[in-house]
Order: sequence, then structure tokens, then C-alpha cells
Amino acid sequence: MRLEDELAALLGPIGWQTDDMAGYQCDWLKMQAHDPLGVARPKTTQQVAQVVTLANRYGVSITPQGGNTSLCAAAVPETGGQIILSLSRMNTIGDIAGDVDCVTVDAGVVLASLHDAAADQGLIFPIHLGAEGTAQIGGLIATNAGGSHALRYGMMQDLVLGLEVVLPDGQIWNGLRSVLKDNAGYQLRKLFCGAEGTLGIVTRASLRLFPMPKSRATALLVVDDMDALVNAGQFLRRDLGEFISALEFLTEAGLDLALHHLPDLKFPLESRGAAYVLIEVETTSGHVDLPDLLEKALGVAFEEGLLVDGAIAANDAQRATFWRLREEMPEGQRLEGPQIKHDISVPVACIGSFITRMAPRLDAILPGVRINPFGHLGDGNIHYNLSPPIGAAGFGDRKGELSQTIYRAVEEIGGSLAAEHGLGRSKVNHADTLRCPVERMVMRQLKHALDPAVIMNPGVIVHG
Amino acid sequence: MRLEDELAALLGPIGWQTDDMAGYQCDWLKMQAHDPLGVARPKTTQQVAQVVTLANRYGVSITPQGGNTSLCAAAVPETGGQIILSLSRMNTIGDIAGDVDCVTVDAGVVLASLHDAAADQGLIFPIHLGAEGTAQIGGLIATNAGGSHALRYGMMQDLVLGLEVVLPDGQIWNGLRSVLKDNAGYQLRKLFCGAEGTLGIVTRASLRLFPMPKSRATALLVVDDMDALVNAGQFLRRDLGEFISALEFLTEAGLDLALHHLPDLKFPLESRGAAYVLIEVETTSGHVDLPDLLEKALGVAFEEGLLVDGAIAANDAQRATFWRLREEMPEGQRLEGPQIKHDISVPVACIGSFITRMAPRLDAILPGVRINPFGHLGDGNIHYNLSPPIGAAGFGDRKGELSQTIYRAVEEIGGSLAAEHGLGRSKVNHADTLRCPVERMVMRQLKHALDPAVIMNPGVIVHG
Repeated sequence: MRLEDELAALLGPIGWQTDDMAGYQCDWLKMQAHDPLGVARPKTTQQVAQVVTLANRYGVSITPQGGNTSLCAAAVPETGGQIILSLSRMNTIGDIAGDVDCVTVDAGVVLASLHDAAADQGLIFPIHLGAEGTAQIGGLIATNAGGSHALRYGMMQDLVLGLEVVLPDGQIWNGLRSVLKDNAGYQLRKLFCGAEGTLGIVTRASLRLFPMPKSRATALLVVDDMDALVNAGQFLRRDLGEFISALEFLTEAGLDLALHHLPDLKFPLESRGAAYVLIEVETTSGHVDLPDLLEKALGVAFEEGLLVDGAIAANDAQRATFWRLREEMPEGQRLEGPQIKHDISVPVACIGSFITRMAPRLDAILPGVRINPFGHLGDGNIHYNLSPPIGAAGFGDRKGELSQTIYRAVEEIGGSLAAEHGLGRSKVNHADTLRCPVERMVMRQLKHALDPAVIMNPGVIVHG
Repeated sequence: MRLEDELAALLGPIGWQTDDMAGYQCDWLKMQAHDPLGVARPKTTQQVAQVVTLANRYGVSITPQGGNTSLCAAAVPETGGQIILSLSRMNTIGDIAGDVDCVTVDAGVVLASLHDAAADQGLIFPIHLGAEGTAQIGGLIATNAGGSHALRYGMMQDLVLGLEVVLPDGQIWNGLRSVLKDNAGYQLRKLFCGAEGTLGIVTRASLRLFPMPKSRATALLVVDDMDALVNAGQFLRRDLGEFISALEFLTEAGLDLALHHLPDLKFPLESRGAAYVLIEVETTSGHVDLPDLLEKALGVAFEEGLLVDGAIAANDAQRATFWRLREEMPEGQRLEGPQIKHDISVPVACIGSFITRMAPRLDAILPGVRINPFGHLGDGNIHYNLSPPIGAAGFGDRKGELSQTIYRAVEEIGGSLAAEHGLGRSKVNHADTLRCPVERMVMRQLKHALDPAVIMNPGVIVHG
């Protein structure tokens, strides 16, 4: 019997798909597309384990896939003939009781669905990112997703209390505990966060929930230069501490692109500046006047010369206007044409100097290259994306040198060349070049220990 | 040449100690004491690596040691003739700039020293636990310490941004980055948190700091029964959300013991009850009236019948009185005589039912056994400690059955048999018995992958 026949028999016609696979085989940024053996869409953990067992028997590798929104091709196979294992049919959200701050969910649950289910019980699951209407919990765990609320609530690894994982040999690890403190040995629940499907397939997770804030306030601010950007962020973190749920930024370059390409996008303030800060504060207390606190803080920031202009959102519609500016940064640049995306982290205090320092260095490599840094002012995660010089069709032969220069500079100051999107397939070579060889060796040792037959998502995180 | 001669030559007389070793070879609870080959006290990472290389050459194993405050014998060797490697001479705290929310420290830095250094710059490092005057950063990382502020700030693994580790083969991994978001492959920085020195020796760490709160308020509360304990905790978490820095509890049994054995300890309220809650709220904002917020919350809790009595600390002295009640729980019980300590976690909503349900089950095993549960109401971590029946000299032959019964019950409800102290040596058998065999196998695979020669702390976390 052939593997595809066994899989068809195991999973049935809905669970084993061999036509209409375009949505599965091609990654979000359309960097890769190989013809898989087929798409397995199991309905239960047991079926996932059986697929993995069969894959082992036939020596065929598996790429697990959630919402397929990876920006570094982590969720599509590196060659043809492999199995794509989609978790999308495993999408049950467990009971959420108002008095219990956790929930058990299937890996295929879409993030936005979990937001809705938690909200029904007066709770929140605090991961927010652009792809939340498509991204699935399993994929978010596999990439250790961050997003705009990580400053306050942490990344995915901080919110995973327990996991169920099908291991590369088909065994099922039941680690579905529901406690913050579990130090009974190695932190496997953390290790699988960010493993990008290379050590096993996350099938279920126990996740931490938080009380829903009772009120919030949002402000859009204008700053004059990159030093002011960092200093304003610093001041706000000191003054509004525990209230801050998001502290984001964009720059004039990105705003220009977005306003140009998205005619319905409006900039709501009078002044323009070098950069813009979006701050959102939230409280679960019913007795805190957040707009007042925010106004007081901004008043001091104005007095100290940190801000050029700013406004607190008067209502939900205005809040949406503020947020849309930040959220449309990727789309504005996409519509401009070719681009190179870099998802990097630098120490928070270095955000300004990094941005200032890099511009002439990149311009020396490709004169006129346009830089659009935006992202998370609170945690130093910059989406540092490039567009070619005006009028140029692309980056010519300078793509590699530009990326390499950026990544090297980031690593030199204690940052990360892969902040919240992971390494996937597209950054493995960069990691091999720039990271400490001992670190890369340990990663290969871990991969080899748990997946000696290289069944799980080969080519992601480490080669072979 | 003998290993001890090579070590003496490498480290000098201060760095290689072979007499006066009592403080190193015997664990905190005096469960183990074997004669080591000697105590290595290297001064640099390079020396640590050289010690590990020599240990490999001679096939002698190493137990890394911080402040030696482990409660499960993780920091002393399992047999004689091994090397104890103390990090205590590596105790430099890097520069703390007021505008940078992180610091690089040596593994041997004592936690309280880091508290002081951070405070000098208006910052905090938010791990607080009983042993903070002795425990060292390296040991706290190795055990993934939790403590009373984990609800708000997380455990050690949530505060470690980067690490430097000497691996079991003597190579040095430099992962000293300083960013929250680093998804460039497996989360090694998380894996070494809680590895209890079995995968390598943490030599330096980059740690996350937070703005120092500008004000705080503390209350001691009395509740009638275990349901009210959980409901009060739940209500306070919902109402005071982001302000809560500690939410602790103790019970009447433990208070009785402490008041009996510590004559200078005073109970400051009029009413006694089944249990007591200690809540502390903090804010970094200068414009929040915390005592008022706390009073409002407690007012509602009284109205809803959740509380019997309570008081907000009027000053620092009264705050210290409240905290001392909680902090003297271990000491009160220690002075009572023999005890069995259990460091467990249960889902927060189950704290009350667990305590209520377990009492008769343990009484059936050893009639009259006295139970003293106390700990962290906010995260479900209970220090569930037993004293023998009044008049009995000990637990007879029931020690194992009592512990096994407790651990089994905890694991059945999605909790953990090892919450914040780790497995060490003393809980490995329990984990082998009660945890999913697949989980234990994965842990052995990880150990074998990184330490095939079993040089690092053999017998901790996994056997062999």
C-alpha cells in the first residue's frame, strides 16, 4: 500500500486532500510553493499521531500548518512530496468559566475566535497582531508570537500553561496542566513555543486568560526626532507603568507611503514629525480615570519638550483611526512595490540610535534605498522594512548585503535578527552566519535528540 | 597528575578549597552530605569552562552551587568524590542605567544585592522570596524561582532576557542578549531556566528590570472558610487587576503554630478565621490613590460577605507586621519539630476544594496529621506542609504514602507536584511515578543530548 492510500483510508476524503491545495502549499509572502504529497487535515490528536506514525514508516516528512500566515516560510514544505498537516479542523475552544483564568483550546482555533470566546466571559487572551483573523493558536505557539501587547502580557510562551504535543515518533505528550508554576523538570512547555513545528506538533494548549479591562485610553503623539521617540517612550513607561498595554511607533517614511497608497486613510493631527507614538493604557479597576492620567502624563511630556503634537482619542472611532495608521504600515509599503522585510529586536534604549545610524550605512550600499521602521517601541521590536530607491524596480544584487548589514548591526548590540516571526526557512542561513556557533550546535543537538529521523518540518530553524 | 592537583593549579588556593566544606556539601534541609573532591570557586567564565573541561577529562561530575538554599537537594552532589562548583566569587553587577530596563549580572550575585543596586537607579528586579539574602541569581535561574510577585511579574524564566552558559563539554554559549523578543530558534534561554544545573552552568545573565512603584498599599484580611478564600482572591484579582503585586495566604493552623513558637509575633486584627489573605498593590503612577482603591475594593468584598475582618496597613511598620505573619509560616512549623514539605501548584479555582478535600484523606492515612497550607493565592502555588499528630515524634512509615497521595491528587487536577522549588534529587522518583512517561522520556533525551557523559549534576531532574 502507498502512504497516500493509507492516509486516505485513515482520514477519509475530508481529512486527506490532494487537490485544491494552493492555499496550503504556498506561503503568505509567496516565497515557496512545492507540490506536497497531500494535505492531512486530522480531526483528533489520535489521528495526528497516526499520521506521524505513518510518515515515519514511509520516511516522509511533515510540515505542520496553522493559519499559514508565517512571514518566513515556516509553514510550507521545503521540497515537493511532503505532507502538509493542517490543524484547521481541530478548532474547539474548551469551557471558559468566569472564575477560572485559563482555557484549553485546540491548536486550530483562530486567534480572533478565542478573543471572542474569552470576551463573552469578561476575560481576555492578550495576544494581538495583524493576522489575528487567520492565525491559529498552534501556529502562534510554534512561532512564539509576540505582537503589540507583549510589553504588558508577554509573548506566547508566557501565556502557555500547558501543552499537548504529538512528538516526531508519533507518541503523544500530555502536558496539559493549568498552573503558572510548574518546575517539575525541563520547561518543555516553553521549549515547544518557538520550535516552529520542528520538534513535534502542538495539538492542544492550556492558555492563561486575564480579567477584561474596564476602561482604556489611547493617544497618538508626534515627536521631532529619534531621540525624542525613545525618550518619550521611556517617560511614558516610567509614568504610566502597569497601565500600558501597547506602546507602538511609526515614522514619517511609513506614514507617507500609507497615506499615498490608501486614499481613505487620514492623518488626524495638525503637525507632522519624524516619528509617531501610539500609546494605549488599560485598567481593570473601575475607579481609575485613565484619560485624566494619560492627559497628566502627556502634559508633562509636552512641558519637557518630548512631544510636538498629540491627541487622546475622544471615542472608539477616533481610536480606530489612530490604530489604523499603525496597522496599515505593512500594507502601505506592500502597495509601493518590492520590499525586504526585517523583523528585528534591539534594546529599547538603542531604538533611536540604531535607526539614525543605519540609514547612511544602507544608503552607502544602495543609494536612495527607503527605510520604513515601525513596530513596538515598548519592547524594541522593529519591523525594519526596505523599499527600493524611487524609480528603481528592485534592489538589484544588493538584497543580501542590505539584510546582512542590518542583522549584523542588530546582533552586535545585543538584539535579535529574528524577533517575533521566527527563523522559518528564510533566516536559517543568517542565523548560521551571525549567531554564536555553539548556540547553533546546541539547537542541532536538540533537534537531533527529539527528531533523529528528521520527520518534522526539515529545514526550519536548523538545516538537515 | 591528579584532577585535584590540576584544579589547585588552575584556581589557586582561594579558588580550590578542600577543607572547611561543610557549608557547601550539606543541603539546606540537611538531607544529604557527601564528601566532595573539593569545592571549585572560579572567578571567571573562562575558569568555569576550564574546570568543566578537566572534569570531562577525568570523568568526574560537577554540581553547580549558588546560595545552596535548595529545598530539594539540587545543589549538593549525590555521592562523594564529585566537584562542587560554587559561583559565589563571580558576583559583579553590571551597570544599571536609569533609562535601560535591563542589567547583566554574574551568576553569583545575591538576589538582595541586585534589589539594592536596582533601587539605586529607581528600578526593581521583581523576584521576592524568603531566601533572598542568600540565594544567588544563577541558582534562581537554575530553579526557575517564583516567589510572591510571580503573579504580576512572572517567574525567573520570564525575567531572563539572555544567558551565558558553560555547557557540559566545556564550551561557552554566549546568549547574552538584552531583548524581550528573540525568536531566532529554540528558546534556549528558557530551557536553561529550571534545568537545575543539569544541562550546563549559568555564568551570567541579562535580566529584565521594571520601573520602581511610586506607592503601594497592603492589607491583611480574614476569611471564614476555603471557599471564601478563593472567592476573595478572585474578586480582588478582578477588581484590582494590574495593581496586585502579591496575593498571599495562610491558614489558621499555620498561624497558630507561628504564634506559639515565635513569642514576638503578633496578630494585629480582632477576629480570627479559617484563613488569611495578604494583598499588596503597587503603582508606578504618581496620580493613583492606592489606599483609596484598596479600601473601595475591600468595602465591596465585605458587603458581599467574602471577608470577616481586615485592615489596610497604616504605615511601613504595620506592613512589616502583616508580611511577617506570612514569612514566618515555615519557621513556625520548623520549630514545631519534624515536618514534610510539599511545594505544589493547583489551578487557582481549585485551591479551596483541594485543601478541603485532602484533609480527611490524609487523616485516614495518619490520624491526627496536621496540615499547614500557605503560599500564593494569586497563582495557586501552595506550600502544603505536614506536621505529625500532636505528641507523635514523626510520621512513622507513612511519609511516602502521604506525599504520594498529595502529589497524585495535584497531578489529577492539572496541577504540579513541583511548583517553584524544582525536582532536585528528592522529587525525581515522584516525577517518574506520576508524570506522563513520554514527558519523562523527552527529559531524558534532552539530558542525554546535551550531557552525554553525565558530567552535570547527575541524579537531578532525571536519573542517570
